[in-house]
Amino acid sequence: MTGHSFDDAVTLHHTAPGRMRAKTSPDWANMVGPFGGLTAAIMLRAVEEQPDRIGEPLSLTVNFAAPIADGDVDIAATAVRTNRTNQHWLVELSQDGVVKATATTVFGIRRDAWSETEALPWQVPAPEEIAPTGLHPTVVWARNFEMRFVEGAIPGPDAEPSPSSVTALWVRDRHLRAFDFALLTAVSDVFYPRVYLRRGAVSPAGTISLTTYFHADGSDLAEIGGDFVLARAHANRFSRGYFDQSAQLWSRGGELLVTTHQMVYFKT
Amino acid sequence: MTGHSFDDAVTLHHTAPGRMRAKTSPDWANMVGPFGGLTAAIMLRAVEEQPDRIGEPLSLTVNFAAPIADGDVDIAATAVRTNRTNQHWLVELSQDGVVKATATTVFGIRRDAWSETEALPWQVPAPEEIAPTGLHPTVVWARNFEMRFVEGAIPGPDAEPSPSSVTALWVRDRHLRAFDFALLTAVSDVFYPRVYLRRGAVSPAGTISLTTYFHADGSDLAEIGGDFVLARAHANRFSRGYFDQSAQLWSRGGELLVTTHQMVYFKT
Repeated sequence: MTGHSFDDAVTLHHTAPGRMRAKTSPDWANMVGPFGGLTAAIMLRAVEEQPDRIGEPLSLTVNFAAPIADGDVDIAATAVRTNRTNQHWLVELSQDGVVKATATTVFGIRRDAWSETEALPWQVPAPEEIAPTGLHPTVVWARNFEMRFVEGAIPGPDAEPSPSSVTALWVRDRHLRAFDFALLTAVSDVFYPRVYLRRGAVSPAGTISLTTYFHADGSDLAEIGGDFVLARAHANRFSRGYFDQSAQLWSRGGELLVTTHQMVYFKT
Repeated sequence: MTGHSFDDAVTLHHTAPGRMRAKTSPDWANMVGPFGGLTAAIMLRAVEEQPDRIGEPLSLTVNFAAPIADGDVDIAATAVRTNRTNQHWLVELSQDGVVKATATTVFGIRRDAWSETEALPWQVPAPEEIAPTGLHPTVVWARNFEMRFVEGAIPGPDAEPSPSSVTALWVRDRHLRAFDFALLTAVSDVFYPRVYLRRGAVSPAGTISLTTYFHADGSDLAEIGGDFVLARAHANRFSRGYFDQSAQLWSRGGELLVTTHQMVYFKT
């Protein structure tokens, strides 16, 4: 126990080379199993902790194959290819020998090169100008974050359908824990399902595949510390039981930290 | 041999359950190894041809781990989880026992549910109003496609840097081969690297991870047949040797077929 909820939840016990065990945390419960962003963070962390890992995360794709039950989870991380400046990993998360999630991730060494952000920062009020709210208190994992919604807060019981699926919020760890790649990964999945907003109602939904591209490096994250980041998501198409979501995370200083995408199952 | 370049290139010989062999095709050569979109199409096709596969593709992530040499490639497809309405697959592509690419893909059964496209179709001239051009003739794989650039054609020798990374083109198979999920996957990677446009020059670049979300189903694709689709891509951030790309494929009839994203290595 580290005394901090996020650190506790991503703590891995190494049982053999490339093999680790974690324990689900009641603080991070979702409707079914743990918060998906936390699962993604654990799978990224599993690679970060490998002694032969090179560089920092560039991309991560997590596939949520089956519900994770409360209790122990086993993680296996395998370097499938090591190149001079990048490394490809396969990660499996299982319980009692049954695969619950798979991930692939590419780590790499960054170097000086022409750099530019083409996406435009969103013009929104500062977090201090917005009241902290959050999700419904029954959504346990969300209590770990301070959320200040710029637009697209979760619909209440009398909500109408919205023509837009956009949600934008300032978000940080409730205890001001500093950002690292694991926390950034978790926050990349901080959005409630876009279909709620479009339909004005909560309905069954779950991410099936989540991809995160890291544009920030470790020193960028060190500068942010435990400050708010601006998270903004939208959907492109809702089609016969599945929709996609694309999102961006920005620092308060105007740096694009992450672009992240997911495919989500839903019922209406 | 089927007599058609794309069909030949994605032809798989089944050597054992879940094990297949393909052969690289000189018609699909890129600077180093084959066109990445073709590799992605082969890995998707490997799952499509499994007898226990259920449903149609929902998402696909391909990680390009190492250059593929000319010759035979071995593909292994494993169903890591089968649920009632979806199925998670892991695919590895290797040569002489060395992994060259990995993929994860989720297939699923679509069903009637509330559906809507929130993204707005691009207002562009019809393909018949645009001259067919393409990429440089030394880019062998590109000769398989008819390309009509709406904007952001590949920069010529006297090009200046562009403030925008946007490319939009109408594209179809040169021989009007009908779209299926494999061809749609290949076309999702039809864009030359965005950094060329921003820098006004060709430089070393290669996709490291490619994710494709399928919004169209098989009957939607049957309606398109061999017609043009509109493909539009942009980058969000170029950061120390890597940039992301997000793209959409639309049918001429205004249906959003695919949203697709990639992380790309580049040098300048």
